[in-house]
Amino acid sequence: MKKGNITLSSYSAEGAISSHKVFDSKSIKEPVLLKTPKGTRDYGPKAMALRQRLLDQVVGVFRKHGAETIDTPVFERKEVLAGRYGDEAKLIYELKDQGGELLALRYDLTVPFARYVGMNNLSNVKRYHIAKVYRRDNPQLARGRYREFYQCDFDIAGAYDPLLPDTECLKVMCEILLEVGVGEFVVKLNHRKLLDGMMEACGVPTEQFRSVCSAIDKLDKAPWDEVRQELVEQKGLAEETVDRIREYVTLQGGLELVNRLADDEKLKCVPSAKEALNDVRLLFEYCNIFQVADRISFDLSLARGLDYYTGVIYEAVLVGDDKQVTGGGSVAGGGRYDNLVGSFKPNRKQQIPCVGVSIGVERLFSIIEARTVDERSRTTETEVYVASAHRGLHLRRLEILNRLWEAGIKAEHSYRMIPKLLVQLQYCEERRIPYAVIVGEGELARGVVKLREVATRNEEELSLDTLIETIRSRRCVA
Amino acid sequence: MKKGNITLSSYSAEGAISSHKVFDSKSIKEPVLLKTPKGTRDYGPKAMALRQRLLDQVVGVFRKHGAETIDTPVFERKEVLAGRYGDEAKLIYELKDQGGELLALRYDLTVPFARYVGMNNLSNVKRYHIAKVYRRDNPQLARGRYREFYQCDFDIAGAYDPLLPDTECLKVMCEILLEVGVGEFVVKLNHRKLLDGMMEACGVPTEQFRSVCSAIDKLDKAPWDEVRQELVEQKGLAEETVDRIREYVTLQGGLELVNRLADDEKLKCVPSAKEALNDVRLLFEYCNIFQVADRISFDLSLARGLDYYTGVIYEAVLVGDDKQVTGGGSVAGGGRYDNLVGSFKPNRKQQIPCVGVSIGVERLFSIIEARTVDERSRTTETEVYVASAHRGLHLRRLEILNRLWEAGIKAEHSYRMIPKLLVQLQYCEERRIPYAVIVGEGELARGVVKLREVATRNEEELSLDTLIETIRSRRCVA
Repeated sequence: MKKGNITLSSYSAEGAISSHKVFDSKSIKEPVLLKTPKGTRDYGPKAMALRQRLLDQVVGVFRKHGAETIDTPVFERKEVLAGRYGDEAKLIYELKDQGGELLALRYDLTVPFARYVGMNNLSNVKRYHIAKVYRRDNPQLARGRYREFYQCDFDIAGAYDPLLPDTECLKVMCEILLEVGVGEFVVKLNHRKLLDGMMEACGVPTEQFRSVCSAIDKLDKAPWDEVRQELVEQKGLAEETVDRIREYVTLQGGLELVNRLADDEKLKCVPSAKEALNDVRLLFEYCNIFQVADRISFDLSLARGLDYYTGVIYEAVLVGDDKQVTGGGSVAGGGRYDNLVGSFKPNRKQQIPCVGVSIGVERLFSIIEARTVDERSRTTETEVYVASAHRGLHLRRLEILNRLWEAGIKAEHSYRMIPKLLVQLQYCEERRIPYAVIVGEGELARGVVKLREVATRNEEELSLDTLIETIRSRRCVA
Repeated sequence: MKKGNITLSSYSAEGAISSHKVFDSKSIKEPVLLKTPKGTRDYGPKAMALRQRLLDQVVGVFRKHGAETIDTPVFERKEVLAGRYGDEAKLIYELKDQGGELLALRYDLTVPFARYVGMNNLSNVKRYHIAKVYRRDNPQLARGRYREFYQCDFDIAGAYDPLLPDTECLKVMCEILLEVGVGEFVVKLNHRKLLDGMMEACGVPTEQFRSVCSAIDKLDKAPWDEVRQELVEQKGLAEETVDRIREYVTLQGGLELVNRLADDEKLKCVPSAKEALNDVRLLFEYCNIFQVADRISFDLSLARGLDYYTGVIYEAVLVGDDKQVTGGGSVAGGGRYDNLVGSFKPNRKQQIPCVGVSIGVERLFSIIEARTVDERSRTTETEVYVASAHRGLHLRRLEILNRLWEAGIKAEHSYRMIPKLLVQLQYCEERRIPYAVIVGEGELARGVVKLREVATRNEEELSLDTLIETIRSRRCVA
C-alpha cells in the first residue's frame, strides 16, 4: 500500500500538509502508473456517443415489447452468487473482507434478477436491465471482451402458456439485431431437455450430463476431434457413446429436422426428448407468425455454458463474410431457466419460470465502432456558440449566453476574456456547432449581432430581440 | 463460504447433479437470506421511472452547457485512489486480492476524472459523468444516503481566465435545482484560500490548517460550542485563536461582506486572503449577469470535506420549511481543484486546473419520491394491448402483434392462450395502456377488430388495414 502512494498535498499550492500523512520523497518522484485496471477501459466522448445511440436502439425495442426496467446493486452478498455458475464461479470478483457481509461483484444480471423476483415475491414481471457485470477472465480486448462489460437483458418471469414468452424473447433479439444493422445473422436453437434426452439415449450416465454438455458447448470453437478426445479421455465415456453423440450434435436444420428426430428410434423412448421436440415445434410455429422462422437453425450442438437453463436455448451468430470486422461468434443469446428463482426459496413450493435474452452490446459496440469511419461525429449537442469579435466584450457575451440558456438553447462560449475570433470560429467548425453568434461593439451599439451559419460561413445581422426566435425557428430537430 | 451455500442443482428439475459440487442436506433446507447488501437497494420499475425522469432533466442542463460525457471503470487501481481523500479513505471498498492488481471501488467521480485527464494528456475537457460510487459509510437510508449511490458530476478542466468556468458550474447547479423543482435553496459560497488566509490571520499553525478546516466543516450540523471544544481540546489551539476564528466563521452575507473583509485589518496582510476575496468579488459580478447572485450566501463557515479543493467552493442547501420532506442539508456542491490532475504527474510541470459541481441526485430523488403521490405513474410505454375476446385466437393475436411491432408501435398481449377478456382489460386499466385492440372471430371474418380507448371505454370497429394508420394518428406524443 505504501509503494507508489502519492502523498503530495493537493490541498493548497503552497503546501499545507495534512498531519496524518507521511511525506516520502521516493513516492513523490515516482508517479502513479496511469492506467485503468487490467481488462477494463475508459469510454471517451466519441465512444460514449456511439454507445448511447446503440443502447437507445436496444432500449427502444425492449420498450416496444412493454418491458419495465429495474436496477440492482453492483455487488451481491456472496452466498447469492455461490453455486449458480458452475465452473465459471472462479471468475467472480470478490470484495475484501472489511467487516460485515461478504460481497462479490455481480457476474451477470440473471442471478440478481432471480434474487429480486424471489425477494419481492413477484409472480410475474417483464423487465430489462442494462448494467455492467464483472468477470475475472482473460480479456480478448480486440474482440470487445473485457472484464467489466455491459449486459442488456430482457426477461419474462411468470407461469404462462408454453413458448409464448420464449418466442417473444427470440423476436426481441432479432428485432434488435436488425435495428442495429449489424449484418446477416442466424439464430441457433436447441433445448436443454433435448440435450439431456439425447445424452440419455446415447448412454451417458446422468451425473455426467452437465460436464458432457459443457464439452459439447466448445464445438463452436473447437473441432470434433478435440471434443471427442475430451469426452473419451477426460470424461471417460465409452467410444460408442461418443460416436452416438456425434451423430446428433452434427445435426442442424429447420422444422423438418424436428420431425425427423421425433421419429428417431432412440429418442422416441426418452420422455424429456419428446417434450423438448414438441416445444421446438411450437416455437417454430410461433416464429413463423413473427416472421423470424427463416433465421432459425435448429442445432443440436448448441449447449450454452451457464448451468441454469432448463428449456429452449438460443444464440444469434453473425454470418457475414466480413470476419475481420465481425470476428464471427455470438452477439446475443438466452433461454429458459425455470428453477433459478425457486432455488433461492427451496421451502416455497411455487417455482417462477423465467425466460430471457441477453444482447451482447459490447460485441455489437466494437463491431459498430470498427466500421464507424466518420471521425467527426458530434459528442455534444451545442446549438450556438457565442463569440466575441474583439476585446472587452466578455460581459456582454455572458449576458447573451444567459438569455440563450434561459430560453433552453444549448450554448457555449470561450472561457477566456479575450479569445481570438479565428480560434472561436475554428472551435465551432471542429465541433460542428451549427451557429455562432458574433458579438461586436459596433453591432451592439445598433442593437444587433451577427448570426453565422458555421457550415456555410454565411453571416447575417439580427436584432438582439429576435435572436432567440430566429435560432428556434432554424432548429433542425423538433 | 460453505455456510448457506445452496448447492441445489438448478440445471434440471430431474436433478442432474454437477460433479464438482457437494450436496449438503443442511444447506438445502436453509434458504439463502434474500436481501441486498447493507446500505444498498434495488430500484424497482416505479423508482426507475422517476429516477430516469430526474436524470434526463439533469443531463439536459449539462448538455445545454455543451458538455460531453465519459465513463470510467467502477474500480480503479488502489494506488490511484490512495492518498486522495484524507480521513475518508477508510470508507473505500477494496477488492479481494485474487492475484494481479490491487483494486478498489471508486469513491467519487472526481479522482477517476483526474486520472482520465492525466492519462490521456488532455489539456482541456468539459464533461459530465453519471455513475455509481461506493462508500462504506453508515448509511442514513431515510435521508437517501446509501453505500452505493449515483453521482452526477459536471467538470471543466483547462487553464482559462479566472472564475469564468467556476461561474458556469454554479449556474449549472442553480439551473438544475430550478428545473427539478426541489424548492427554495441558497448557494453557500466560500474559498479555500480565504479559509487558509483566515486561519493564518488567526494564528493557526500551517500544518494544522487542514484539520481545523475539517472541524469547521462540521458547523452546519454541530453548534459552535462543540466545534470550539474540538479545536481547543483535540487540536490544541489557543483559546484566543479559536475566538478569532469564531468571529470569521459566523459571518455570512453578500458582496458587502466581501468588501468589508477586504478592509479587515488582519486579512489585509495575508496575500492568499486578498486573492480569494478578489475571486469571490468577480464571481459575484458574473453571477449577477447569470441572474443567480441573489441566491448566493457568502459563508465563511463553509469548508467542504474533501482535501483536493484549492479555490472557490460552493454548496446548495434547501431552505424550504418542509424539513420533514427535504431533511435540510446540501443537495449539490463543488468547487475548484487545481492540483489534482497534476498530483498524478509530479514530473510534469503543467497543472490542469479544474472546477466542477456534483449534483446530489440521491437526495433529490428521495425528496421527489417522498412527495410523489401519484401511485399510478406508468413504468412502461405500451401503446396498444392486443386482447382476445374468446378462445382459439392466440395465433391471430400474434399476427396482429407482429404487424404492430413492425410498424414501430409498442404493443403487448397476454402470454396465455385463452386469457379472460376481463383480466386483459383490467391489465390495460391498471397499466394505463391507452388502447386495446380486441380480436373476435366474428369481427375477423369481416376483416375488422375493435379498438377500445381504455380510459373512456369507448369502442369502435376498424378495418384491419387501417388499424396501424389509426393508432399512429391518435398518438399523443409525436
